[in-house]
Amino acid sequence: MCEDEPMTAPIVFYFDFISPFARLGAIGIERLASKLGRSVEWRPVLIGITVLQIMGMKPLPLTPLKGPYLKRDLERLSEWLGVPVPRHGLTGVNSVIASRAFLLLKREDEACAQRFGRAIFDRLFAQGLDITRLEDVLAVAREVGVYSASLEETLGSPEAKDLLRRAVDDAVAAGIFGVPTFVADGETFWGNDHLWMVEQWVRHHDFRVGGPEG
Amino acid sequence: MCEDEPMTAPIVFYFDFISPFARLGAIGIERLASKLGRSVEWRPVLIGITVLQIMGMKPLPLTPLKGPYLKRDLERLSEWLGVPVPRHGLTGVNSVIASRAFLLLKREDEACAQRFGRAIFDRLFAQGLDITRLEDVLAVAREVGVYSASLEETLGSPEAKDLLRRAVDDAVAAGIFGVPTFVADGETFWGNDHLWMVEQWVRHHDFRVGGPEG
Repeated sequence: MCEDEPMTAPIVFYFDFISPFARLGAIGIERLASKLGRSVEWRPVLIGITVLQIMGMKPLPLTPLKGPYLKRDLERLSEWLGVPVPRHGLTGVNSVIASRAFLLLKREDEACAQRFGRAIFDRLFAQGLDITRLEDVLAVAREVGVYSASLEETLGSPEAKDLLRRAVDDAVAAGIFGVPTFVADGETFWGNDHLWMVEQWVRHHDFRVGGPEG
Repeated sequence: MCEDEPMTAPIVFYFDFISPFARLGAIGIERLASKLGRSVEWRPVLIGITVLQIMGMKPLPLTPLKGPYLKRDLERLSEWLGVPVPRHGLTGVNSVIASRAFLLLKREDEACAQRFGRAIFDRLFAQGLDITRLEDVLAVAREVGVYSASLEETLGSPEAKDLLRRAVDDAVAAGIFGVPTFVADGETFWGNDHLWMVEQWVRHHDFRVGGPEG
């Protein structure tokens, strides 16, 4: 109980299904973790709360100068990962119900929840279909074989709402704001552009390796 | 005149003397450029204009959640670069006069301007001394042997003010917001955490190399 955390602790991946950067991060961290012999634990947050409400920021695509920059950065990261640029023409996409479903599934089985999560990301960013409504979420659950009548029943319950509320509160308490964020062996890394640093930290537990002169 | 830009074009480094991340970026890009056989061209911006006025953001250290994260990120990047964490206990530091002096020197000679720029960064972040006042700036100019009576005279002139105003306008027109930003062979990269991507781009002109599975 009081033993040191084993070095095979999972890398935690914080995401919001509405973020194209998180969609790339899901793929990036999976590959990196597999290379490092680690597993990944997925944890949903709502950037509408962390970024817009708590940090008081504008949505990034609407931020002057930074919006266009991030559009190009997304393209480059997509090329780097060998994944098509995540794109959809939808507006008002909301991840609340999908995140609740994810957490209900996660309570039973992390692997099932991740299978569902990957399919939600695919639906939005590869197929360009909405993930906002209950029927969108249930369609995905059926598609990947994790649907149950009890999942459908529980989704609208106070229990499911509470599960997501606590997940967001816990993330905020842990200092999480944007997505993707990766937590590996006690260090927190925000953004796909930090994946190289996640690798270095997990391998060496020392940042003084491989500086740019290296 | 209409020839292709030679591949030995300098890497442009946008900075603001008040930013500890820019201070690390100055060191990081210098080492990387030297490894790549490139030179660096320094261009000052004022993040008080780009980030606070145009983007409408709060100063990052005051942003909830992100402030503490960036503090730790600065420490890690310092370790990675092998440079002491840039720190000073000063408030109200302003880089306007130092940036004007930089641009006046740059108009004559890029290398002299960079020597002066490195010394300004050192004064603030290594020695913990202010760089705001005219006398601070002139002390640094004397220290590194770039002082002249004409520099001192011109510093307060409309000409010097105009030089800086145009530099900031040009940067904004080029989509620059935060610092450090690096522009290499037509691609713009914001933040020290992108130095790996600068390297990849300059070496291969292709982002599809070395993804995280690589």
